[in-house]
Amino acid sequence: MVKWFWQRREPGRRLQLRSRDDVSGVHRVDFEELAPDIDTFLGQAAYLQLGYFETLSELIQTTPELAEKEALSRAAGAALRKHQDLIQLIRERGDDPTALMRPFREPLDAFRRETHGVRPQETMLSVHITAGMLDDFYLALSASYGQTGDRVARILRADSDRQAIVDLVTTTIDSDAEWRSLLALWGRRLVGDTLLIARAALRRTALGGAAADKAEPVFTELMAAHSRRMDAMGLSA
Amino acid sequence: MVKWFWQRREPGRRLQLRSRDDVSGVHRVDFEELAPDIDTFLGQAAYLQLGYFETLSELIQTTPELAEKEALSRAAGAALRKHQDLIQLIRERGDDPTALMRPFREPLDAFRRETHGVRPQETMLSVHITAGMLDDFYLALSASYGQTGDRVARILRADSDRQAIVDLVTTTIDSDAEWRSLLALWGRRLVGDTLLIARAALRRTALGGAAADKAEPVFTELMAAHSRRMDAMGLSA
Repeated sequence: MVKWFWQRREPGRRLQLRSRDDVSGVHRVDFEELAPDIDTFLGQAAYLQLGYFETLSELIQTTPELAEKEALSRAAGAALRKHQDLIQLIRERGDDPTALMRPFREPLDAFRRETHGVRPQETMLSVHITAGMLDDFYLALSASYGQTGDRVARILRADSDRQAIVDLVTTTIDSDAEWRSLLALWGRRLVGDTLLIARAALRRTALGGAAADKAEPVFTELMAAHSRRMDAMGLSA
Repeated sequence: MVKWFWQRREPGRRLQLRSRDDVSGVHRVDFEELAPDIDTFLGQAAYLQLGYFETLSELIQTTPELAEKEALSRAAGAALRKHQDLIQLIRERGDDPTALMRPFREPLDAFRRETHGVRPQETMLSVHITAGMLDDFYLALSASYGQTGDRVARILRADSDRQAIVDLVTTTIDSDAEWRSLLALWGRRLVGDTLLIARAALRRTALGGAAADKAEPVFTELMAAHSRRMDAMGLSA
């Protein structure tokens, strides 16, 4: 696992942040034997968005500043819309969204707790970094599921409205060297947890074999996009 | 105040609940001298929706059952959309949404705390009852603000997606006589707080005079709609 993110990382450079988190540039790849069955894919993707929504809602409640509440509520709304669009898609396929999401509840709730920072700025960075990577990952996976996958890709590509959160975190980073080093460490810590979640989403039986090699370029792309996200905030990945 | 809701209430009857909370039937009325200035109107209306969203988000976090989370998240999403549509409207008018909402933060946060029940079902009932009444009230007020008011009316009339919450509360009420009496009391308690909030939204200088009489039919309509909401859940108002 670890080599994916310690190796191959781009030299640090400060990019101008573009809107809509389009720093990702991750491609859709047909994973074939690595892709989980479609129910697993849809259930996880839907539950992840609900998790982002819950984390962002918690932040709204603990933030005293109304302007920050506004910024957070836009991002929360975007995550909720993606969740609801995925739920709608599951329903149209004749499945019960709750049943499809339930198996992922325990591991994804644990993941959410682990990426919950002590300070709100850490948690904001968590959402940007983990949702950024995992949305990219599910986008890459979506190519394995035909028309349903195309619809998932459209849902995930919709604006996540997290730019205001990134601005808040960037302001914090720029304000203070201690914050910068704290958040840089936090960002690095998040990557390990997030890649484990992505890896766990793949079909287990295939992970030991030659098929695993197919996943590597995708993880490399995820890491490159992660580096760009960190760079854009003035942090080295 | 009190006579508005102890008097004139309709005899209890059990209605079939229609979707989209269209039991309200409250009319838009030009309040003239009673209507607050438009900034007050917009700031309060926007902050109220944010409050519903926050309360519903808290419920999502404390609800273990995924299907209930789903129901709550639909209602939370609808409140957030109304909030954001109102924010957008304020911005288009060249005003700062945060500045317009700030004066109502303290009283409306206090209101939200007062209507927060010990048990989730109480809080669910609170959202249905208080948001139902206050949305009706702001809808009635909206007739005083020309085209901007028409736009507010369209925003408030959008589906609040609270039907699943009403179903949950109704199931609780039907399951147990003790729950029924507890929630009936809770519903009555909510009305007083809610009417005070509605009353406080009116222009103060006019409340003592003859203009106050103009408000009465609206409060009567609010109470009638409230009774219908309570009846529909099998509670007497």
